Amino acid sequence: MSRLPRGFRLATARAGIKEGQDRDDLALIHALRPVQAAGVFTTNRLQGAPVRLTRARLRAGLAQAVLINSGNANVCTPGGLKDAQEMAGLLARALGIRERLVLVCSTGVIGVPLPMPKLRAAIPRLAQNRATLRQAAQAIMTTDTFPKYLSMELQVGARRYRLSGFAKGAGMIQPRMATTLAFALTDAPLAAPVLKAALREAVQQSFNCITVDGQTSTSDTYLALASGTEAPFGPGSRGERLFKSALLELSQHLAAQVLKDGEGATKVLKITVKGARSRRDALRAAYAVANSMLVKTAFSGAEANWGRVMSALGASGAAVRPERLDLRIQGVLVARAGVATGRDKALRGRLSKAKEVAITMELGLGQHGAQVLSTDLTEEYVRLNAAYRT
Amino acid sequence: MSRLPRGFRLATARAGIKEGQDRDDLALIHALRPVQAAGVFTTNRLQGAPVRLTRARLRAGLAQAVLINSGNANVCTPGGLKDAQEMAGLLARALGIRERLVLVCSTGVIGVPLPMPKLRAAIPRLAQNRATLRQAAQAIMTTDTFPKYLSMELQVGARRYRLSGFAKGAGMIQPRMATTLAFALTDAPLAAPVLKAALREAVQQSFNCITVDGQTSTSDTYLALASGTEAPFGPGSRGERLFKSALLELSQHLAAQVLKDGEGATKVLKITVKGARSRRDALRAAYAVANSMLVKTAFSGAEANWGRVMSALGASGAAVRPERLDLRIQGVLVARAGVATGRDKALRGRLSKAKEVAITMELGLGQHGAQVLSTDLTEEYVRLNAAYRT
Repeated sequence: MSRLPRGFRLATARAGIKEGQDRDDLALIHALRPVQAAGVFTTNRLQGAPVRLTRARLRAGLAQAVLINSGNANVCTPGGLKDAQEMAGLLARALGIRERLVLVCSTGVIGVPLPMPKLRAAIPRLAQNRATLRQAAQAIMTTDTFPKYLSMELQVGARRYRLSGFAKGAGMIQPRMATTLAFALTDAPLAAPVLKAALREAVQQSFNCITVDGQTSTSDTYLALASGTEAPFGPGSRGERLFKSALLELSQHLAAQVLKDGEGATKVLKITVKGARSRRDALRAAYAVANSMLVKTAFSGAEANWGRVMSALGASGAAVRPERLDLRIQGVLVARAGVATGRDKALRGRLSKAKEVAITMELGLGQHGAQVLSTDLTEEYVRLNAAYRT
Repeated sequence: MSRLPRGFRLATARAGIKEGQDRDDLALIHALRPVQAAGVFTTNRLQGAPVRLTRARLRAGLAQAVLINSGNANVCTPGGLKDAQEMAGLLARALGIRERLVLVCSTGVIGVPLPMPKLRAAIPRLAQNRATLRQAAQAIMTTDTFPKYLSMELQVGARRYRLSGFAKGAGMIQPRMATTLAFALTDAPLAAPVLKAALREAVQQSFNCITVDGQTSTSDTYLALASGTEAPFGPGSRGERLFKSALLELSQHLAAQVLKDGEGATKVLKITVKGARSRRDALRAAYAVANSMLVKTAFSGAEANWGRVMSALGASGAAVRPERLDLRIQGVLVARAGVATGRDKALRGRLSKAKEVAITMELGLGQHGAQVLSTDLTEEYVRLNAAYRT
């Protein structure tokens, strides 16, 4: 607990939201005073009640507590907004803080009303508890198999600041402008608009470049809270630059952890597009390959089945000219000018052991590129998702 | 064989293109005289050499033979176009017809050169053989588990005409403007432009409304040949109307067979969007749900996991307003105005036995609709595709 940024404490408690689940399912981020706050959210048009509540309250750029529950997303539920408000109100009373300063995040099944009696019993207990960063990360897990968190330090002149973050996510992963649930806490001095800009920038190069199954959830939220009370880092200052770089590192670490925990995944696919006519084309091409079921299943096996990469690329909608197109797998040029080189034999036996597979497409049409991280698709993914009710 | 349209014969032979595969892998459609011909093709930007050759030759609207092989798609191969031309030339000489009138279709692995010596040996034999519609349908199968074909009759005034078709396909199925490989033969009198218009219309409501895995192949081709020599059916004539309707029926039958044979599939998902703001929005919404890995795995299990349908819909890019949105599964209203009704309990136990699951979304924003047929996603799909090399 000593490693948290100054001015914050964490807590967890067990409400028993999901029947038969024997672990804490509530987490609390509590700032001793109101702090600067910013968030980015899912672009899904069906947003959960907690997302709508939190987004509205963040307009003021201030927060003092975040209440998070797993086991139920409070999405498409009758009275969902009322329930989210009640949760916030219960916590505000238990902590003796202003209700407007409480944010709420929920993750889990869609379409089932929250078990409010259980929450009414557990939230006052939660307010009294304490937890480590690891315990908080554990309490927000759904199908995750391990907790995702990191603490780091940054030095600005003579001062040292801390930055801690935690996240959840394993399925329904193709965040756009946000991620499943992620939180960054710092004691560096940052005004909410600067914090928000840094968050947006970090998300673009971390959570927005990963995909497990091409699905954008209804609850994606990434919140950043800054408790520093000195004169805030101004735009362009050294402090701001160092903080941005630290936040990017934290975000990339958490995003990579989410990807690594991709349901049933055994490999990370690193998909790079170069020489695209536009950035949009580069992203289209990269995501078409990253989300191709045939590509993803191919690489769960041991064969360099690159024909499926070509086919997914050709159907992506991006401008592609076969005679300009080179394809490399793990650095081996398997197709040059759109035609097989016969060198894929060199890959035999090398892919089954690889934890990461690099797929690089040079389109030869322009200067734009993109990189997306994906996972392979295994029978385990199907098994998990045929049984689990999102 | 007596059931084929007049003026056509079929043949099959075994070239042994795929090692260890003990069945015919060549099929021939041979018209006794040059006939009217039309085709629609994949929109994938990486098109196989056979697609490029056949498309160019079809500009004249005439053909006399179609040579089809399974086991190798002749895509991304060095010298692919030369090989396709040589295949056509070999057949033309063996049949004693003009080479320009020979079309070529190939399906199977990508990136491996065709075994030309085997084809040189087999094509002259093929030209001498005879086969039934069923045998031809069998010879073009790849991962298909059953042959797909149908013959029907249409009566125009006092005259009777035949229409026969066959197709292949089980994976890499999301045709756009075409399908995997499909063929329609008729002895009705149709000029090539009328035939092409009829084919385009039929494809829109058949092969263009199915998806197994959201992948558009590099070889998709649907060819129609008409041998009738009487005065052709004019635009708007009764004959044209009857033929269009028969061709649509044939196409829908073949497309449904392809879908039913979707790799590892145990259920057909019938996804209907109503009340969309535009046709484009309706298609986007329908395909987003149809290709959602989470929706597809959910319905391979027995639960009505409709939250995933909502989430896929919300992320589809189509205009959606939760308060206008109704969702029905097998006719049961599971969400009204974007909120759970609690009626999904009525579905328990009903989905595990169902061969077809109807998912209907009423968006309440306009007059446009769309319907897409998809399949569930099972562990078997992953098993098949981790092993099979496309």
